[in-house]
Amino acid sequence: MPLILKFAEPELQNRISKEVLSGQKRMCLCITEPGAGSDVQGIATEAVVSEDGSSYILNGEKKWITSGMYSDYFVTLARTSPTAMSLFVVPKGPGVNLRHMYLAGSSSAGTAYVEFDDVQVPIENRIGEEGDGLKAIMSNFNHERLYISMESLRLARICHEDSASYLLQREAFGRKLVEQPIVRFRFAHMARETEALQAWVESLIYQSSNMTSQQSDLLLAGQTAQLKAHAGIVLENVASSAVQLLGGLGLTKGGRGERIERIWRDLKGNAIPGGSTDVLLDWSVKRAFALHKAMLNKSSSAKL
Amino acid sequence: MPLILKFAEPELQNRISKEVLSGQKRMCLCITEPGAGSDVQGIATEAVVSEDGSSYILNGEKKWITSGMYSDYFVTLARTSPTAMSLFVVPKGPGVNLRHMYLAGSSSAGTAYVEFDDVQVPIENRIGEEGDGLKAIMSNFNHERLYISMESLRLARICHEDSASYLLQREAFGRKLVEQPIVRFRFAHMARETEALQAWVESLIYQSSNMTSQQSDLLLAGQTAQLKAHAGIVLENVASSAVQLLGGLGLTKGGRGERIERIWRDLKGNAIPGGSTDVLLDWSVKRAFALHKAMLNKSSSAKL
Amino acid sequence: MPLILKFAEPELQNRISKEVLSGQKRMCLCITEPGAGSDVQGIATEAVVSEDGSSYILNGEKKWITSGMYSDYFVTLARTSPTAMSLFVVPKGPGVNLRHMYLAGSSSAGTAYVEFDDVQVPIENRIGEEGDGLKAIMSNFNHERLYISMESLRLARICHEDSASYLLQREAFGRKLVEQPIVRFRFAHMARETEALQAWVESLIYQSSNMTSQQSDLLLAGQTAQLKAHAGIVLENVASSAVQLLGGLGLTKGGRGERIERIWRDLKGNAIPGGSTDVLLDWSVKRAFALHKAMLNKSSSAKL
Amino acid sequence: MPLILKFAEPELQNRISKEVLSGQKRMCLCITEPGAGSDVQGIATEAVVSEDGSSYILNGEKKWITSGMYSDYFVTLARTSPTAMSLFVVPKGPGVNLRHMYLAGSSSAGTAYVEFDDVQVPIENRIGEEGDGLKAIMSNFNHERLYISMESLRLARICHEDSASYLLQREAFGRKLVEQPIVRFRFAHMARETEALQAWVESLIYQSSNMTSQQSDLLLAGQTAQLKAHAGIVLENVASSAVQLLGGLGLTKGGRGERIERIWRDLKGNAIPGGSTDVLLDWSVKRAFALHKAMLNKSSSAKL
Ligand SMILES: Cc1cc2nc3c(=O)[nH]c(=O)nc-3n(C[C@H](O)[C@H](O)[C@H](O)COP(=O)(O)OP(=O)(O)OC[C@H]3O[C@@H](n4cnc5c(N)ncnc54)[C@H](O)[C@@H]3O)c2cc1C
Ligand SMILES: Cc1cc2nc3c(=O)[nH]c(=O)nc-3n(C[C@H](O)[C@H](O)[C@H](O)COP(=O)(O)OP(=O)(O)OC[C@H]3O[C@@H](n4cnc5c(N)ncnc54)[C@H](O)[C@@H]3O)c2cc1C
Ligand SMILES: Cc1cc2nc3c(=O)[nH]c(=O)nc-3n(C[C@H](O)[C@H](O)[C@H](O)COP(=O)(O)OP(=O)(O)OC[C@H]3O[C@@H](n4cnc5c(N)ncnc54)[C@H](O)[C@@H]3O)c2cc1C
Ligand SMILES: Cc1cc2nc3c(=O)[nH]c(=O)nc-3n(C[C@H](O)[C@H](O)[C@H](O)COP(=O)(O)OP(=O)(O)OC[C@H]3O[C@@H](n4cnc5c(N)ncnc54)[C@H](O)[C@@H]3O)c2cc1C
Repeated sequence: MPLILKFAEPELQNRISKEVLSGQKRMCLCITEPGAGSDVQGIATEAVVSEDGSSYILNGEKKWITSGMYSDYFVTLARTSPTAMSLFVVPKGPGVNLRHMYLAGSSSAGTAYVEFDDVQVPIENRIGEEGDGLKAIMSNFNHERLYISMESLRLARICHEDSASYLLQREAFGRKLVEQPIVRFRFAHMARETEALQAWVESLIYQSSNMTSQQSDLLLAGQTAQLKAHAGIVLENVASSAVQLLGGLGLTKGGRGERIERIWRDLKGNAIPGGSTDVLLDWSVKRAFALHKAMLNKSSSAKL
Repeated sequence: MPLILKFAEPELQNRISKEVLSGQKRMCLCITEPGAGSDVQGIATEAVVSEDGSSYILNGEKKWITSGMYSDYFVTLARTSPTAMSLFVVPKGPGVNLRHMYLAGSSSAGTAYVEFDDVQVPIENRIGEEGDGLKAIMSNFNHERLYISMESLRLARICHEDSASYLLQREAFGRKLVEQPIVRFRFAHMARETEALQAWVESLIYQSSNMTSQQSDLLLAGQTAQLKAHAGIVLENVASSAVQLLGGLGLTKGGRGERIERIWRDLKGNAIPGGSTDVLLDWSVKRAFALHKAMLNKSSSAKL
Repeated sequence: MPLILKFAEPELQNRISKEVLSGQKRMCLCITEPGAGSDVQGIATEAVVSEDGSSYILNGEKKWITSGMYSDYFVTLARTSPTAMSLFVVPKGPGVNLRHMYLAGSSSAGTAYVEFDDVQVPIENRIGEEGDGLKAIMSNFNHERLYISMESLRLARICHEDSASYLLQREAFGRKLVEQPIVRFRFAHMARETEALQAWVESLIYQSSNMTSQQSDLLLAGQTAQLKAHAGIVLENVASSAVQLLGGLGLTKGGRGERIERIWRDLKGNAIPGGSTDVLLDWSVKRAFALHKAMLNKSSSAKL
Repeated sequence: MPLILKFAEPELQNRISKEVLSGQKRMCLCITEPGAGSDVQGIATEAVVSEDGSSYILNGEKKWITSGMYSDYFVTLARTSPTAMSLFVVPKGPGVNLRHMYLAGSSSAGTAYVEFDDVQVPIENRIGEEGDGLKAIMSNFNHERLYISMESLRLARICHEDSASYLLQREAFGRKLVEQPIVRFRFAHMARETEALQAWVESLIYQSSNMTSQQSDLLLAGQTAQLKAHAGIVLENVASSAVQLLGGLGLTKGGRGERIERIWRDLKGNAIPGGSTDVLLDWSVKRAFALHKAMLNKSSSAKL
C-alpha cells in the first residue's frame, strides 16, 4: 500500500486505495521468485508492452507471496528491459494461477506460489515511470523493515507476558518457578535484550518523524536494515528462552503456551522475508561506509 | 524397555519383552504429570494395594506421553507411600483414558494425555521392589539422555547435509551461495559445534563401554546429563543457521527445506523432555561437586 | 560525591564539597571488603562510638578501592550495630594504611587495599543518621550504575572508531579489509548491539530526567541495574570483535590498536564493580516482580 | 623446529637440531610483516642470491615474532621470486635488528619486531628447495594449530580448577558460592564447552596418529584449522565466565585469581596468531567443499 501512496499516479492511487483501505479488496506484494530471493535484481519475470500499446503482457513466477491466496491485486516487480524493472498492479484474473504454500508457522497467512501466464495488465496499472520499480521497492523496504521490527518487538513482549504469568503460578521443587534463581537469570536476559530493542525502535521512529522522507531514505535506510536484523535475532533469543521456561507447554498447541509455541514456529518468518538477516547486516555496514565516504566528499547523496 | 530388562522380575520381563521386541505390542513411559515435570518427586499419581492384595489400584494423570496414543503398555511411576514411588506396567484397558495432544513438531508421535481412573494392575506388573521406582527411573535417565544426545547429533548432521547441498546449487548475486564468505562463515560455526559434539558423544560411549553399568551410573550420570543439555543447545544453534541458509525454503513444508523445517519445529522436543536444559546443567555441576567430595572423603559412592 | 550532596548534613556537605569540587582534595568510596563483595550486607568493618562520645573508632579492611592511593577522604560503610550500617567520611591520617593493588587494566586507577586500624572519625563526619548507611548506598548505586553504563557505551564507540579506521586502511588478500564480507559482518554485529545499547541509555536518562529522585529510585532502580549488566555484556562482545578485527595490533600496547588493547584488558572492570553482572541480572528480575506485586496490592512503595 | 625436521637437508637439520634440542640455542619463526599478516602471500621480505652465489641477501621486516628477543636463529619466509617464497635459517648477526614489542599478555614472550638489513645467509641455510617455502609453512600450520588448540584447552582447564576452588571456599549471602544456582549454571556452561573441546582434540590426535603425514596434511588440515578457531572461541567463553566467578580477584594481579587474570589478558594471543579465527573458519569450509569436489571427481588430491 505505501508503494501505491508514494509512487503511483493519482488516478491509480485513487482507484486502488479506495477499494483496499475500505477492506473491499486485498492486495499482496510479489517480488521473490524461485530463482531470486535475497538477490532482487536476479528476477526473471518479464513485462512486455503489447502490440497495440495498451497493456503489458506478464510472464513469470513468484514464490512465498504472503496473502497471495486472498488477494485481488498483485503488486508485482517485473523486468521491462534487460537492465530495468517496473512495478505493476496486476488484478486477479485469467493467467494468474495460485497454489497454496504451507509454512512452519503463519498457517493463516495464505502464502501463495503465483504464476503469471500471459497476463494482460493495463498500461495505467504501472506504478510510476517505467524503470523506476527497483527504486520504489528499495524505498518501500524501509517502511516494511521498520514494521517487521515493531512486530518482532511485540512478539518478544508476548513471550515476556506469557512466561511471567507461568513463572508466577507454576510450582516445582517446593517453590514457584519465579523463586528459582536460574529461571530469573534467563528471564533477565530476555528482558535486557528486549528493553534495548524497544529503545532502539523508539529512537528510530523518533528520528524518522523528524526528517523528510527523502532524508530518512538517505540517512536511516542502513540503520533500519540493521534494526530489522537485530530485532529478528533478539526475538529468536527471547522466544527460545520463553519456550524453555514454559517447558512442555512451550511446545504444545493450545493451552497456556499457545502463543509462545506459535511464535517459536513463526519467528524465522520475521528473519527471512524483507531481507534476510545476514544480507541486511552486511548491507548496513556497506551503506554506513558509503555514506561516510559520500559525506567526506561532500558529494551529493544521489549516489547512494 | 531398558527399564524392564534391567529392573523387572524374570517373569514380567519375559512376558513383556517378547511381545514388544517382536513388534506385536507397543509401550510408553509415563512419568510427567500436569503438576510435576522437572520435579519428578512431585508426582501425585497413587497406587494403592487392593483389599484382596492381588492388585494395585492406580489413580492420577500423566501428560505429554510420547507414543501414548499407540501404546498397549504404560510403564508408570506412581506413589506407593507418601515417601516412596514404584514403577508399574499398566496394560491398556478399563480406566485408562487417552486424549491426543498436539505439539509444535512431532506430529506423528502420538503424544497423549493419560488419565488413570481406578485402574487395576496385577501385583506381578510392578517392576522391581515396591519403593524402587525412583531409583530405576534415575538409572534409566542415563540411557535416555545418551539416546537423545545421539538423536540431536544426527539431526544436526541432517542440517549440514541439506544446507550443504543447497549452498552448492543455489545462485544469488552472480555466484553460488557457497562462494559467499558470510555463508561459509555461518556454515563453519555449524560445523565446529557439531564436530565437537560428535567427539564428545563418541567419547562418552567409549567410556561407558569400558565400565560396568554400576560404575557408569556413578561416574557418568552427571556428564551424560550435561551432554544431553549441550547437544540440545548445539542442535538449536545449528538448525537456526540452517534455516537461515535455506532462506524461504527453510520455513516451507515439503520441498528441499523439508527436513530442516521439521527439525526447527521439533528441536525443543530434544531440549525439554528427559530433563530440561537448565535443570540438567545445574544438576550436572551439583553432581560433579558431590562426586568430588565423596572421592575426597573416600566415602562409599552409595550416597550419590 | 553524590552521596554527600544527597545525604550529608549541610555543614559536612559544605566542608567536603568545597574542597573536592575545587580539586584540592580527592575522595573514594570504601564498601567492599576481603570477606564481602557482592554481598554488601556481609561487611565486618565496625564503627564504635568513643567513650567521650565525640568520635567513632573504625576498624576493618577495604579492598579494590578505586583512587584509594590518591585520596584524602575515604567514604566508608561500617557496621554501627549488629543489624545497621552507617557511612562515614574518614580523613586520611593515623590508622589509615594503604597498599597498592595491581589490576589487569586500570593501571593508573590507584586501586588500594585500605586498612582501618583504630581510626578516630569525628562524629560530625557521619553521613546522615546512624543506621542509614545501607539505604544511602543503595540509592547511590543507581547513579553509579548509570554512569558505568555510559562509560561502557563510550568505550564501545571507541572500539568502533578505531576498528573502522583500520578497516578502511588495511589491505589483505588484494583489497581493503572493509571489502571483506566477513569483516563487515562482524562489524555489523558490533554496531547493532551498540546502537541498541545507546538507545536504551538515552531512554533511561530521559525517563529519569522526568521523574523526581524518589520516583526514579523506586521505578528505575531495577532497570538501571539491568542496563548496567547489559552494557557490560555488550562492551565485552564489541571489544572482543574489535580485537579480532585489529589482528596483532589489537593485542599490542602502543600503536594503532592501543585504545582497543586497553579496553580489552579493562572491560571486566565495568562488569564486576558496582554490582557484578549476574547479581544485577537476578536482582533486576526480583525487583520487577516485587514492584509488580506492590502495584497490584496498591500497597505503599515503601517496602521496596 | 618441525619445519626443520620435516623439510631441511640432513646437514642443516643435524647442525641446527643438535643445538636447539639441547637447549644451547633458541629459534623463532618469522612470517608476519607489518604489511602482511593473515595474508601470508602478501609478504615483501626479499632474498636475493649474492653475486658469488654463496649466499642470499635478505631485506625486510617481520613483526610480532614470539621469542624473537631471545633467539639465535630466525626461521624466515622470504620472497625468492615474484611468485615464489623460500624458508631460511637466518642466524642472529649483522643486519638483524630487534626491537621489543609489548603485548596485552605474554609479557615474558620476548616478542620482537625484526628488521633484516642486507643480512647475508649462507646458501646451505635454505630449508628445502627454492620456492618450497609456502608449502612447508602450510604443512607446518597443522602442527602449530593443533598445538595451540591443546594449549587453549589446557588454559580452559586452569580456569575450571581455579574457579572451582574459589566457589568451594568463598561465602556470600550466607552460603558458599557453589551453592548459588546461577553460579553453578555459569560453571556448567564452562564445563560443557570444555568437555566437548577436549573430546574433539583427542579425536583429531587419534585420527592423525592413524594416518601418514601426507594423509593428515590432506584430510585433516581443514578440521585442524577449524579446531584451532573453535578452541579459541571456547577459551574466550570459559575465561570470561571464570573472571566473572572470581569477581574482583579475576582482575587482580597476584593472589588467587592470578592465573585467570593472566589467561584473560592473553587469550586473544591464541585466537589471532597461527591464523586468525575468522580466516580459519572461512578457510575450513572452503577446504571441506574443495575436498568433497576432489573426491567426487576421483581426481588426485594433489590439487588441494
Ligand atoms: C514467511 C515468508 C513470507 C514471505 N512473504 C513474501 C512476500 O509477501 N512477497 C515476496 O515477494 N516475498 C516474500 N517472501 C520471500 C522472501 O522475501 C525470501 O524468502 C527472502 O528474500 C530470501 O530469499 P530466498 O528464500 O530465495 O533465499 P536465498 O536468496 O536463496 O538466500 C538464502 C540464504 O543465503 C544467505 N545469503 C544469500 N546471499 C547472501 C549474501 N550476499 N551475504 C550473506 N548471506 C547471503 C542468507 O542467509 C539467506 O537467508 C516471504 C518469505 C517467507 C519465509
Ligand atoms: C515432545 C515431548 C515429549 C515428552 N515425552 C514424555 C514422555 O514420553 N513421558 C513423560 O513422562 N514425559 C514426557 N514429556 C514431558 C517432559 O518430561 C516434561 O515436559 C519436562 O520434564 C518438563 O516438565 P514441565 O513441562 O512440567 O516443565 P516445568 O517443570 O514446569 O519447568 C519449566 C521450566 O522451568 C525451568 N525450571 C524448572 N525448575 C528449574 C530449576 N530447578 N532450575 C532451573 N530451571 C528450572 C526450566 O527451564 C523448565 O524447562 C515430554 C515432553 C515433550 C515436550
Ligand atoms: C576495577 C575494580 C574497581 C573497584 N572499585 C571499588 C571501589 O571503588 N569501592 C569498593 O567498595 N569496591 C570496589 N571494587 C570491588 C567490587 O565492588 C567487588 O569486586 C564486587 O562487588 C564483587 O565482589 P567480590 O569481588 O568480592 O566477588 P564475590 O562477591 O566473591 O562474587 C564473585 C562472583 O560470584 C558470583 N555471585 C556471587 N553471588 C551471586 C549471586 N547471589 N547470584 C549470582 N552470582 C553470584 C558473581 O558472578 C560474582 O562476580 C572494585 C572492583 C574492581 C574489580
Ligand atoms: C601474541 C602473538 C604472537 C605472534 N607470534 C608470531 C610469530 O611467532 N611469528 C609470526 O610470524 N607471526 C606472529 N604473530 C603474528 C600473527 O601471525 C598475525 O598477527 C596474524 O596472522 C594476523 O595478522 P595481522 O595482525 O596482520 O592482521 P590482519 O591480517 O590485518 O587481519 C586483521 C583481522 O581482519 C580479519 N580478516 C582479515 N582477512 C580476512 C578474511 N579474508 N576473511 C575474514 N576476516 C579477515 C580477521 O579478523 C583478522 O584478525 C603473532 C601475533 C600475536 C598477537
